[in-house]
Amino acid sequence: MDKVWKLVRHPDGDRLSAALQLSERPMPTLQEGEVLIRNQYLSIDPGQRTWIRAEGSYMAPLALGSPMPGGVLGRVVQSRAKGLEPGELVSGMGQWAQHSVMSGRAVRKIAADPSIPAVAHMSALGPTGWTAYIGMLNVGRPQPGETVVVSAAAGAVGSVAGQIARIKGCRVIGIAGSDEKCRWLTQTLGFDGAINYQREDVGARLDELCPQGVDIYFENVGGEVAAAVYPRLAVFGRIILCGLASTYNGGPAALIDPAALLMKRARMEAFVVNDFFAEVPAIVRELSQWFREGRLQQSIDLVDGIENALSGLESLLRSGGRHMGKMLIKLREDDAGSSSQ
Amino acid sequence: MDKVWKLVRHPDGDRLSAALQLSERPMPTLQEGEVLIRNQYLSIDPGQRTWIRAEGSYMAPLALGSPMPGGVLGRVVQSRAKGLEPGELVSGMGQWAQHSVMSGRAVRKIAADPSIPAVAHMSALGPTGWTAYIGMLNVGRPQPGETVVVSAAAGAVGSVAGQIARIKGCRVIGIAGSDEKCRWLTQTLGFDGAINYQREDVGARLDELCPQGVDIYFENVGGEVAAAVYPRLAVFGRIILCGLASTYNGGPAALIDPAALLMKRARMEAFVVNDFFAEVPAIVRELSQWFREGRLQQSIDLVDGIENALSGLESLLRSGGRHMGKMLIKLREDDAGSSSQ
Repeated sequence: MDKVWKLVRHPDGDRLSAALQLSERPMPTLQEGEVLIRNQYLSIDPGQRTWIRAEGSYMAPLALGSPMPGGVLGRVVQSRAKGLEPGELVSGMGQWAQHSVMSGRAVRKIAADPSIPAVAHMSALGPTGWTAYIGMLNVGRPQPGETVVVSAAAGAVGSVAGQIARIKGCRVIGIAGSDEKCRWLTQTLGFDGAINYQREDVGARLDELCPQGVDIYFENVGGEVAAAVYPRLAVFGRIILCGLASTYNGGPAALIDPAALLMKRARMEAFVVNDFFAEVPAIVRELSQWFREGRLQQSIDLVDGIENALSGLESLLRSGGRHMGKMLIKLREDDAGSSSQ
Repeated sequence: MDKVWKLVRHPDGDRLSAALQLSERPMPTLQEGEVLIRNQYLSIDPGQRTWIRAEGSYMAPLALGSPMPGGVLGRVVQSRAKGLEPGELVSGMGQWAQHSVMSGRAVRKIAADPSIPAVAHMSALGPTGWTAYIGMLNVGRPQPGETVVVSAAAGAVGSVAGQIARIKGCRVIGIAGSDEKCRWLTQTLGFDGAINYQREDVGARLDELCPQGVDIYFENVGGEVAAAVYPRLAVFGRIILCGLASTYNGGPAALIDPAALLMKRARMEAFVVNDFFAEVPAIVRELSQWFREGRLQQSIDLVDGIENALSGLESLLRSGGRHMGKMLIKLREDDAGSSSQ
């Protein structure tokens, strides 16, 4: 048998525990072209809250009774896909379960590299890192000397996005939900400034820190934080619309007046990492290089045990949580049998 | 003496007559590098309402007492600029006056061309045509077969924007304020459909006419029309943010929920033609070619007499007005002395 989180009901507001249930299923069997992965890590991401909406999101609606999808890292235990052998370490979009079934074409082999721990492929060098890279560089196109503001800046995407903007020569201001996070941003990651939205007036602090306005706003949260940033765009400003986490459980949206964009010749652009898979190998090469050089760091917030996946997601979606960096569920030995890592 | 419209007070709402007054000034004298133009046509454009705001717009605030700026076409009567001789026909950003003073570097010579009347350089081939071109092509990047919706579609910019989208192989739906305008769009300009927002339910009609959603929305108006279009974007949709005319006199804004963009991986982007002057010669060549081939038409709404400039602007800003195409003020002989056209 295999433990698995299933969607049993579309959630209402923040009551996710009525929507997702941990249950057991027979060990999945493979179709031609598929592989069975023994999961070692599950990725927990705020955007997953949108995948389980009745109306769908950028992903098609998930049918009730389906396993909860999510990024995983693990080893192949069985393969009906060409070029993938048992024992190989891979990552991809699997399921919140002890094992994942994936198309062989959709998995990514993780080559052994003594300079890069495998878990980095679930954090700074993984999908959240690609998201930060694509958003900041493909969508935001930062120029040296520009002022960049990142919300949820201590999060998995935000912390990488801000570091990339630093690497590109920008002044980077992070917005986060605790003094501890703000210190991490400025003292460890080298951000030029940080704002604790839980106790500071974000608008007033932005006026101090960004007197020429905001050239790029990397948007992860929406809500009140966004409402403070949108009117402070500089001419030719860009809003990189990556996520709106504060709204996913039903929090108030921050509506934007198009006039704020019009008079600034500004751009607001959304994107989804799934549309850029062809670019991933090149992105991973560049992120890996920065990682080896120590210019790209990421805190990993490791939670033990598959039974904690749901509470992890709930906690991530709570404003002002304690999480810094990438949240991962590490499956225990007894969760996944004789794990081979 | 020279008749001139001056800004005497920043306007409040739609009471523009308290803000702009026609008065007389001594004939302007030239600085080195400037030319004096005897205006033949003045351009009347909804965006001019934003130029006279106390807080400014994409243009710096206009000082009280200043002549009202505006596009003009006319002949050089005096020149202190190299390469510009009296008698030459030019266009550029002049003043709502009988004469305009301009920097010689900012005027455009209009070459005599038997296939193109000079007034076309104040309409389809002029700044409003460039605006339509840049917005639709540089910002919107239409692909053949895409569905394009244009608001204020019978206006100077909208009518050209829609025709360009047609030339590029798109299905084009125009939104306008009268049945006469809608007939002009479909029967004369070849739009694939038109919606009269004054008497039709725009949302319901869009659902009929754009069952796959809106790939590109060329936004000229804001307000209720915009509120009907924004939620109907297709995946990878683009909102070309060109103008928000319905809001310029204080009408309600149509706020947009960033979630509508996020889930559609959509983009909303503003632009101003002034940022693209280097591209104008190439743009005019292409627009001129389409014009000669009969693929690009424009109605010109000609109003006689400089004293009617203000009422023309007021009328343009009124919802559901009668104006089709480009509004121009034609200066009378007695307005401008011995006009040499």
